[in-house]
Amino acid sequence: MNYFSSDFTLGILGGGQLGKMLLTETRKFDIATKVMDAAADAPARFATNEFVRGDLLDYDAVYHFGKGVDVLTFEIENVNVAALEQLEREGVKVYPTPQSLNIIQNKASQKLFYEQYQIPTAPFQVFEDLNQLKQAAEKGEVTFPFVWKSARFGYDGNGVKIVRCLADLQQLPQGQCLAETMVSFKNELAVIVVRSPKGEMKTYPVVEMEFHPEANQVEYVICPARIPDEIAQKAQAVALQVADAFNSVGLLAVEMFQTQNDEILVNEVAPRPHNSGHYSIEASYTNQFEQHLRAILNLPLGATESKVAGVMVNLVGEEGFQGDVVYENIEQIMAMQGVTPHIYGKRQTRPFRKMGHVTIVNPNLSKAREIAQEVKQTIRVVSNNKS
Amino acid sequence: MNYFSSDFTLGILGGGQLGKMLLTETRKFDIATKVMDAAADAPARFATNEFVRGDLLDYDAVYHFGKGVDVLTFEIENVNVAALEQLEREGVKVYPTPQSLNIIQNKASQKLFYEQYQIPTAPFQVFEDLNQLKQAAEKGEVTFPFVWKSARFGYDGNGVKIVRCLADLQQLPQGQCLAETMVSFKNELAVIVVRSPKGEMKTYPVVEMEFHPEANQVEYVICPARIPDEIAQKAQAVALQVADAFNSVGLLAVEMFQTQNDEILVNEVAPRPHNSGHYSIEASYTNQFEQHLRAILNLPLGATESKVAGVMVNLVGEEGFQGDVVYENIEQIMAMQGVTPHIYGKRQTRPFRKMGHVTIVNPNLSKAREIAQEVKQTIRVVSNNKS
Repeated sequence: MNYFSSDFTLGILGGGQLGKMLLTETRKFDIATKVMDAAADAPARFATNEFVRGDLLDYDAVYHFGKGVDVLTFEIENVNVAALEQLEREGVKVYPTPQSLNIIQNKASQKLFYEQYQIPTAPFQVFEDLNQLKQAAEKGEVTFPFVWKSARFGYDGNGVKIVRCLADLQQLPQGQCLAETMVSFKNELAVIVVRSPKGEMKTYPVVEMEFHPEANQVEYVICPARIPDEIAQKAQAVALQVADAFNSVGLLAVEMFQTQNDEILVNEVAPRPHNSGHYSIEASYTNQFEQHLRAILNLPLGATESKVAGVMVNLVGEEGFQGDVVYENIEQIMAMQGVTPHIYGKRQTRPFRKMGHVTIVNPNLSKAREIAQEVKQTIRVVSNNKS
Repeated sequence: MNYFSSDFTLGILGGGQLGKMLLTETRKFDIATKVMDAAADAPARFATNEFVRGDLLDYDAVYHFGKGVDVLTFEIENVNVAALEQLEREGVKVYPTPQSLNIIQNKASQKLFYEQYQIPTAPFQVFEDLNQLKQAAEKGEVTFPFVWKSARFGYDGNGVKIVRCLADLQQLPQGQCLAETMVSFKNELAVIVVRSPKGEMKTYPVVEMEFHPEANQVEYVICPARIPDEIAQKAQAVALQVADAFNSVGLLAVEMFQTQNDEILVNEVAPRPHNSGHYSIEASYTNQFEQHLRAILNLPLGATESKVAGVMVNLVGEEGFQGDVVYENIEQIMAMQGVTPHIYGKRQTRPFRKMGHVTIVNPNLSKAREIAQEVKQTIRVVSNNKS
């Protein structure tokens, strides 16, 4: 297949920052693309050959978009899977596969899938709706505290809640959900696996999410994770097991817990480029976006090793600011060694909105981690308008 | 100045591959751009906020384009300098400066500039036209063999010819020209210097152009150059001297000869991202395109050191083929370690057209060089239509 400077067209559902960073790679290879997103100002409206506005959850919109491309991929899980399945039946190549997306979109089916394939994961119970969970809790069939998860469309902490008593259940939304045993973990880890249709499979090094000691938010993504080799090998083996079970095509980001007993438990997966792989743009021989492209086009996979150590810091809108974004002190961080800001192209900031990220690379991981802390303490995503 | 996701607009004159690769960096930082090029299918027509068709040598076209941007740069030297000078007088920031471009555009004034600033360069004589040169040659005032260079608009070997006898002068075009003493050199080297308006200045490592032993064409650009440290230091010192003399802003690529006596002689310069710096996309902490952007926007310069060794191979259209391009065996080279193809986005190939380049990175330079040779022997830029 001739993908390069040809009539071949790749369709991308979703025009957010992941789509934008994927387009850097399609431009590098001069592969023609079409992007669909509902927002007129989607970050990926540039650098594509054609930008189409459309609702990603609408069957007709997705179906018609997919009929106009040769290979279809997505940068967000919340897309109409029925349309993807129909497109696949009609001969459009859809990667990652609709089958795996179908399982992943629903956290209940995702957990049941792990159970079926004997993939280690935290114990859980599935409930058809909140009432069923409440009844079970009242009867003592679930033990407090536990983690409540909405089965559908949870994102970035939405749809996940720690429940400590019956009263905590009152504020939760209706709908299918999970009660998951709380895991006491030493580390939250992630491994990105890439697999091509012909079955070539590779893993990226294990990365570590370092949490803020008080705020309980991920502050740094660190590659390689500062864990013993045997734990890293175990995590990579589990990630491969997951990708193999899904028969995944493209990237699969596997998020995991390293428990106090050094067990590896799968938390959840994302079938696409992932926040935990952003460090790869500067640190890896093949960044995750190029790798995703290589995989879904059945090209040879690139090396997943790192050239240097990498630490990634997310840039999120600061609390108390809403309006035209200003990246305060960005010049100061650009003067620091090995620092690259990525600005996603969202004109408006609002509290906690993902606006960009910063990668810090260095031959020495401790040094990179140190500079990352300076970066975090220096740059602020604000606005001239206080909210 | 707030460049990031703001109303600020950078204008880029020229929409070729250098413009295309510069746009990768403006997208990374979400800096708005306008690009002007005469060709409707210019590689940089995508990934810019606005693409304008216009003749780069036309005063009015350049002037009107420049009035609509905050900072103006160019990716090709053949632009209307009078328009740039007028824009500068009217307050538009034009970087690199029209003054330095004016000198560089004309090879005679470039050489006289080196003489004035005591920058080492091969001995030369300037002639107002070919007849003047012929008369001098007949009188024995120039010694055969020598290198004839057209003063204006020479490109990629055009406008340069080795003259061995009077008869060789017959085929040459009219117009101002140089006769330059032929230099016997060990190596052809290049150093990219970057300088910002506030005077911050850095050099990239010295790179080496390795020539095909028979064809006398550059085959590989190698970073770092395989030369002794003291030669590298001398080359960097000369490059800094040149950039300093020009008071240059942005990138300045300085091409040099290392003579048999280990003298460093400046051959010519380019005030823009340069073929000899393409390796930096994969190998350097800050690639040349990001660096150019940092410099012309007066942002702090990034580190110029390499993460790993890099070798670059140009992809040019093979002789005997013309028409829709096919990158034969590209999948094979993508399976090799540390290999990244860059496809410029020209639909039509023709003999010797620059269609792309391939970078090979590796912690070990010899290994990278070895793989580069495999790459060169494998990929072919052809077409299904024979010419």
